[in-house]
Amino acid sequence: MRYDGRKNDELRRISIEPNYIIHPAGSVLITMGQTKVICTASYEDRTAPHLKGTGQGWVTAEYGMLPGSTGSRKARERKKVDGRSQEIQRLIGRALRSIVEMEKMGEISILIDCDVIQADGGTRTASITGAAVALMLAFKKLKAQGIIDEIPMKGLVSAISVGIVDGEVRLDLPYPEDSVAEVDMNIVMNDKGEYVEIQGTAEDGAFNGEQLAQMLAYAKKGCEELLEVQRSVLEQC
Amino acid sequence: MRYDGRKNDELRRISIEPNYIIHPAGSVLITMGQTKVICTASYEDRTAPHLKGTGQGWVTAEYGMLPGSTGSRKARERKKVDGRSQEIQRLIGRALRSIVEMEKMGEISILIDCDVIQADGGTRTASITGAAVALMLAFKKLKAQGIIDEIPMKGLVSAISVGIVDGEVRLDLPYPEDSVAEVDMNIVMNDKGEYVEIQGTAEDGAFNGEQLAQMLAYAKKGCEELLEVQRSVLEQC
Amino acid sequence: MRYDGRKNDELRRISIEPNYIIHPAGSVLITMGQTKVICTASYEDRTAPHLKGTGQGWVTAEYGMLPGSTGSRKARERKKVDGRSQEIQRLIGRALRSIVEMEKMGEISILIDCDVIQADGGTRTASITGAAVALMLAFKKLKAQGIIDEIPMKGLVSAISVGIVDGEVRLDLPYPEDSVAEVDMNIVMNDKGEYVEIQGTAEDGAFNGEQLAQMLAYAKKGCEELLEVQRSVLEQC
Amino acid sequence: MRYDGRKNDELRRISIEPNYIIHPAGSVLITMGQTKVICTASYEDRTAPHLKGTGQGWVTAEYGMLPGSTGSRKARERKKVDGRSQEIQRLIGRALRSIVEMEKMGEISILIDCDVIQADGGTRTASITGAAVALMLAFKKLKAQGIIDEIPMKGLVSAISVGIVDGEVRLDLPYPEDSVAEVDMNIVMNDKGEYVEIQGTAEDGAFNGEQLAQMLAYAKKGCEELLEVQRSVLEQC
Amino acid sequence: MRYDGRKNDELRRISIEPNYIIHPAGSVLITMGQTKVICTASYEDRTAPHLKGTGQGWVTAEYGMLPGSTGSRKARERKKVDGRSQEIQRLIGRALRSIVEMEKMGEISILIDCDVIQADGGTRTASITGAAVALMLAFKKLKAQGIIDEIPMKGLVSAISVGIVDGEVRLDLPYPEDSVAEVDMNIVMNDKGEYVEIQGTAEDGAFNGEQLAQMLAYAKKGCEELLEVQRSVLEQC
Amino acid sequence: MRYDGRKNDELRRISIEPNYIIHPAGSVLITMGQTKVICTASYEDRTAPHLKGTGQGWVTAEYGMLPGSTGSRKARERKKVDGRSQEIQRLIGRALRSIVEMEKMGEISILIDCDVIQADGGTRTASITGAAVALMLAFKKLKAQGIIDEIPMKGLVSAISVGIVDGEVRLDLPYPEDSVAEVDMNIVMNDKGEYVEIQGTAEDGAFNGEQLAQMLAYAKKGCEELLEVQRSVLEQC
Repeated sequence: MRYDGRKNDELRRISIEPNYIIHPAGSVLITMGQTKVICTASYEDRTAPHLKGTGQGWVTAEYGMLPGSTGSRKARERKKVDGRSQEIQRLIGRALRSIVEMEKMGEISILIDCDVIQADGGTRTASITGAAVALMLAFKKLKAQGIIDEIPMKGLVSAISVGIVDGEVRLDLPYPEDSVAEVDMNIVMNDKGEYVEIQGTAEDGAFNGEQLAQMLAYAKKGCEELLEVQRSVLEQC
Repeated sequence: MRYDGRKNDELRRISIEPNYIIHPAGSVLITMGQTKVICTASYEDRTAPHLKGTGQGWVTAEYGMLPGSTGSRKARERKKVDGRSQEIQRLIGRALRSIVEMEKMGEISILIDCDVIQADGGTRTASITGAAVALMLAFKKLKAQGIIDEIPMKGLVSAISVGIVDGEVRLDLPYPEDSVAEVDMNIVMNDKGEYVEIQGTAEDGAFNGEQLAQMLAYAKKGCEELLEVQRSVLEQC
Repeated sequence: MRYDGRKNDELRRISIEPNYIIHPAGSVLITMGQTKVICTASYEDRTAPHLKGTGQGWVTAEYGMLPGSTGSRKARERKKVDGRSQEIQRLIGRALRSIVEMEKMGEISILIDCDVIQADGGTRTASITGAAVALMLAFKKLKAQGIIDEIPMKGLVSAISVGIVDGEVRLDLPYPEDSVAEVDMNIVMNDKGEYVEIQGTAEDGAFNGEQLAQMLAYAKKGCEELLEVQRSVLEQC
Repeated sequence: MRYDGRKNDELRRISIEPNYIIHPAGSVLITMGQTKVICTASYEDRTAPHLKGTGQGWVTAEYGMLPGSTGSRKARERKKVDGRSQEIQRLIGRALRSIVEMEKMGEISILIDCDVIQADGGTRTASITGAAVALMLAFKKLKAQGIIDEIPMKGLVSAISVGIVDGEVRLDLPYPEDSVAEVDMNIVMNDKGEYVEIQGTAEDGAFNGEQLAQMLAYAKKGCEELLEVQRSVLEQC
Repeated sequence: MRYDGRKNDELRRISIEPNYIIHPAGSVLITMGQTKVICTASYEDRTAPHLKGTGQGWVTAEYGMLPGSTGSRKARERKKVDGRSQEIQRLIGRALRSIVEMEKMGEISILIDCDVIQADGGTRTASITGAAVALMLAFKKLKAQGIIDEIPMKGLVSAISVGIVDGEVRLDLPYPEDSVAEVDMNIVMNDKGEYVEIQGTAEDGAFNGEQLAQMLAYAKKGCEELLEVQRSVLEQC
Repeated sequence: MRYDGRKNDELRRISIEPNYIIHPAGSVLITMGQTKVICTASYEDRTAPHLKGTGQGWVTAEYGMLPGSTGSRKARERKKVDGRSQEIQRLIGRALRSIVEMEKMGEISILIDCDVIQADGGTRTASITGAAVALMLAFKKLKAQGIIDEIPMKGLVSAISVGIVDGEVRLDLPYPEDSVAEVDMNIVMNDKGEYVEIQGTAEDGAFNGEQLAQMLAYAKKGCEELLEVQRSVLEQC
């Protein structure tokens, strides 16, 4: 059994609080165990520069951590964005764009911001899961305001981490497991059960095909459960 | 009467939630009306470079706003910190250092972070009021851990905005009042009723001695009420 | 008596040399004791971006110190502008805009540059006092050239420092006093005797209402004397 | 058949020219089709700051593209490194460290530089395959010079791209295929046939488990062939 | 005799490989002894901003060194370009523009990139000599494509270093001579035997008129020989 | 005759005001016609990092222009130093080091700052001529204070511009001539009549050997006259 009592294929306790911040078009506070991320979806009435004149919209994402969110204070990225943040926000953006029909948005933009206020592992996957809900809430609001005619989304995405700790495959790693994991993998899946992104890294050594298969199976179970939570939150809004 | 029903010398509803974030030595979520700021106080086991070898400690502050915290999304300060943020964080640092006995801290540092998650006017004064509590909580924890022998604080500070709107002096301006104010003033006072900082700016025109006197009187009333809230929160921790 | 023989409410020797630099529309060299600042007012034939199309003009300011101007050489701000410089130039800009009728300027800009060539305390207040004259000279020249029809200024501003040193309130602090002051205050007043800006900071401890009143009285006296010098220089040009 | 006549599971023509640059400890020019990358491995007589005093060494990597290497000129990264370059160089560094026994290096560093002089798809995987050889050459030279006692490498890594184009799984995508691929995946494997890194992204839509299995099979075949080339080059040096 | 067996007025072995990189309009690899520079000339369908609407084109240059190109690894210029690189690329740009008839180009730009892949002294002069050929190749290609009607070049430029080592005037200094030279001079000449640029620096002491005359004579001989190589390469393309 | 009445080989009116700024070890205001530069020489009690432990000192220089110093306002270099400023300050530094015996300084530094307060051509050469005097004044003061035992200077340097305007060789070009010159050359000479630096650029076309000879002759005359002024100022201090 794991240090927090969970089974190897069990998620942490998850909650998604919709409309957490009043100003943006959509927002949530997503909580997975001790990890807490504010996800906002802000509307802009112009598309990305490279899409001007095409009739298409754009969705992009930024990711940050509050200095006090981690065990030892994280310096603000005020001179440059570090490589890790850039990788994460590019991942979030790609994951969300995979479910958006940009050609149906019209020439508008949605800017997603995922800001970690408390970190305990899995912040990038929580960001994707939360941002997908914030994005849907934003589109609903824009539709209600008559800015768009229909919700330009094909479905939902959710994301989860999986890894190998002490030789065992485990789902949804908190920081104490993540920091000693031999393999760390993040999986993004859509609501048809297909892969949108797979990022697996052997931090120490390597992994074989059998271990890969088991990680993929656990991740599928996790993403399906997250999808249930997303759907139930959206039904209430 | 004001648009939110308050009298000219009345504060907005205030709450301070202690220990809001688990990792830093001290933290609060301060709420003043719709304005919400996370204040954390992180411990470092070395003093500022210019104090090395003096036996003295240091307290410094940083201030930021989440992109989704404001009415129109605020771009992240990832290349440089804008002038407004720098002015505010220098003010917060000075205000807190005015109540700390740095020579009793030993060669340690406390790094204050004030991050606005929702903005509706008065974010800098809410930051000071909240950070003073976070700082006290941090020192209490460090004392409990044996890192310091005594709480190196002379007292508390609180801060409030006051201004002139439509020719009337008003206390604790929310954004709709702040954005049209003729005069905007921020006052920091200690728990002996003395001034620590006065910053008053005529945005449009100028103000006379009589108006100044009334603003100072309102601010004094506001700071005293905030002090009561700070004390009651600290008593419970 | 003070180390330089002045009384507590006495200004240092002041001179303002008009048209000190040939290229800009207006310029002065202002000298207050050992403090020397070159203030230039440069004309641009377009307004600030946010005012385009409104018919309004803009006045903005920048502040710098030559590396050799201070006791220990000051590194150039070539990668970023430090917080102090930003605070000061924002203050100078606000102070000057308080006397300009931007809606009468037409869509032009005046860029004020205040460059300290020798520093001995009070550089920000000397900058404001000198820049107000440079600005007036620039508008006179633009009017003579037919670029504007009337001088778009409501009046003049002057500024002075006041503080508490060794428990005594003193006017116009040179560096040796400024560096040990318990309280440091900068006051900007217009030519109707009204306050445009008050910035008071307790560097060590705090100050009470009585001390505040005396500082305000000394500052009023200082600003009035500076106004006399400004007027006499402008009469000769 | 593909536009360049290859079968779906066939690599482009590959060559690795050892000792291409005279100054660094190790270097190669790797050519895969039209893609050409100079990989150098430079020696430094100190380890990374975070490893000082541990007796361990460090291997890190940087990646760049010459402006003239691509179809439309790529601006130099002179103000900041773009997100893509950072992702790639972090990937290269992790891949190489997976085969190095840092604890046997002593407190030295190897700095890998992968500079693309001509780009036609697959520059990141070519960089890894080439850099592994440059690294081995560098360690051989350092051993010959008596700087290290043994070659601190567990084996070799190679890397290849695989993807889905027009619904077909294909190995080693050149730019014309890469730019229209539905799925793009980069696989890093060690010489035991284990996975070191898997990065798969659906650029358009998503992919299912069966497609994933076929991509992994093609990548395995490609990495094995690259390993043969690496071994044969190293035998000659 | 010199350490590499050359006479004082003798060039190193030189070769210019045309069309070295496939993507840009023109490119060469120039080799002078151990010094190797890739010069590319990229076409852009707009002129420099300051020439917009004038009908004139523009030629500009950038210069860089690969990290592994030098004896001790050269850090990438990723935050700022160092002063040496800026001086060199400004020199290259001026030298090339001296032979281009910008008013005959039409509103297009050519961006020259000179990237040193192996350095052994004389990289800036090799860059100019190689870039002049790359530029001519680019214009030939643009003419063949119908983008320009005629080759807008008045002739060719070549460049060489000359210096004083151990009191002797020497031509084409490799790094071991350059690093101990008393005087270092770079000369750019056109194909009419006129001077385009002279940059001579006494690194240690100074030089008299007689020494200057001898350096100018050697440089003239060197530039003429380089011109022969440039012409013979261009004849074959 | 030239537009300002001078003959082709005649200097503008020159003055050097010593000890112009009170804080630095040495300082002058140099005036050449309308060009005015403040040159300061600041003392630091440590040498450059690369000379630590060698017993040698260092002299380095920075160059800047006040925004209001030029015809159209020059933007501050607050994010990066432009290429021109870097070239100039590197030139100033080299010129001064050519007359300093660094090995006799001890491990101290002199930081030269040349700040143009009014520009009318020839600012870089005026900077060198003025800075040589400021440097000598600084060493005299340091010797008087017992920080150094002897003046570590071999002599003086002076610098002047020369060029070809309307086909005529002319000495000491003011901006109206400089901006239309066909050739622009800056010459630095020591007090033995030797060359320290020659930088000649054909802005438009090229120049032949005869023209070069005449420019060198005029420059020699100019540098000798400047040397007289430097000597006479230093005799009075």
